[in-house]
Amino acid sequence: MANRLYIVSSGAGGTSYITPEAKKALKECEVVVSYSKYAKELKELIEGKEIYTSGMTHEIERCNQAIEYAKQGKTTCIVSNGDANVYGMATLIVEIIDEKELWDEIELISLPGVTSFLAAASKVGAPISQDFSIISLSDRLTDINLIDKRVKAALACDFILGIYNPKSKKRVLPYQNFLKALEDGYQDRIAIIASNVGREEKEKITITTAKDLITQDINHEAVSMSTLIIICNSNTRLTKNGKVLTPRGYLNKYELSGELK
Amino acid sequence: MANRLYIVSSGAGGTSYITPEAKKALKECEVVVSYSKYAKELKELIEGKEIYTSGMTHEIERCNQAIEYAKQGKTTCIVSNGDANVYGMATLIVEIIDEKELWDEIELISLPGVTSFLAAASKVGAPISQDFSIISLSDRLTDINLIDKRVKAALACDFILGIYNPKSKKRVLPYQNFLKALEDGYQDRIAIIASNVGREEKEKITITTAKDLITQDINHEAVSMSTLIIICNSNTRLTKNGKVLTPRGYLNKYELSGELK
Repeated sequence: MANRLYIVSSGAGGTSYITPEAKKALKECEVVVSYSKYAKELKELIEGKEIYTSGMTHEIERCNQAIEYAKQGKTTCIVSNGDANVYGMATLIVEIIDEKELWDEIELISLPGVTSFLAAASKVGAPISQDFSIISLSDRLTDINLIDKRVKAALACDFILGIYNPKSKKRVLPYQNFLKALEDGYQDRIAIIASNVGREEKEKITITTAKDLITQDINHEAVSMSTLIIICNSNTRLTKNGKVLTPRGYLNKYELSGELK
Repeated sequence: MANRLYIVSSGAGGTSYITPEAKKALKECEVVVSYSKYAKELKELIEGKEIYTSGMTHEIERCNQAIEYAKQGKTTCIVSNGDANVYGMATLIVEIIDEKELWDEIELISLPGVTSFLAAASKVGAPISQDFSIISLSDRLTDINLIDKRVKAALACDFILGIYNPKSKKRVLPYQNFLKALEDGYQDRIAIIASNVGREEKEKITITTAKDLITQDINHEAVSMSTLIIICNSNTRLTKNGKVLTPRGYLNKYELSGELK
């Protein structure tokens, strides 16, 4: 039997959203490969395991390392925060195994998780009941013009918009373009700015408007690589207690009794 | 203190993806309100609780019922499969509480889950590492022309596309429009058709192409209300072992060693 390598999505934040399958994989494995910060958060679940950690931007190295452990016959988990398919580690692991032609040697099992867009949404009411688009503003691996085109098209089609990786200290142009796109007809949109969702003490979620985002200094600390931004659509409104609600449309068509209007 | 009402996202399928927070809420509550099928799947987690179930299309009734229980002082969970914000129960609960002005009486806590798009993606490789759009083809509550516009824009912007509620027996036109949109330049796209993701014995996931979807009889049983379809983007390819891979782009820019090319 081939050696098992798990891609473990740990869910947004610490361990509030970790699935039974992910826990089981962490229990079963011998080695855990992880970004240093996430390994700390999973501490209780991975005690006694061989642990390999490294810092941000060392994704390729961590993937190689995880594959190496699995090749050595050690059941291995590589950890990805949120969901591994949403700008996480899944793609790189699959690509490297394929490039190195290791499919006969490694049994790869990928486990999904709660991505931060959904975790953030749950904290502010019901903001995303309609169609939505998820866009990363990082142009490290995606053409900046394509990012720009996607943002504009999503706004024009009244998608709810989830923005990952809005900006870093060195990378502000895609975010500036995003703000310009909002300026042009979407200033009244409700915006949610969320950092560290699921990390109890550090979690910070602000309900504001696109206009407020635009008029802020764009180097403002509130928006960084670990911030998630949700731009709601033209149907979204605040409830009487200040929560965010995008009605799905039931109560336009049905009475509260459930009867057709 | 106000009476507590939890919106519990149970994750895709049965209980494979249920989060610790969701489990805790189900344990804490007195009453569980649920679509009949999901209550059966959660059986072990809700034993001994007062349980109220009803069938499909009775969403408004279930929400009213859950709110009623909470008003009576019973801690209540209303269950939503997948994630409650993704075409689930969150919006309706928030809307009804707001309509009835019950915010002082009810403490609402919403818990996120693994939506079926992410669960399905994890089972076939790494298909969605780039930007994506999620669209429901149900025109019960959304204008069919807007659905059509969103599908076309998402394809034109090379988003990966997640299609929920593709068609029912009575509702086939939005699905036909969707196939027409695929016909026009996107026939070679990899398509993933997934049913019952996370329900071990019933789960069925097929990797195919948009062309195969188009040439199928559209009343084919493989596509129904409980099917999720993923249309991959222009970068997606099959790996040497037949898995689906959308490369994020790392290996265009970096060597396998992690060094810049």
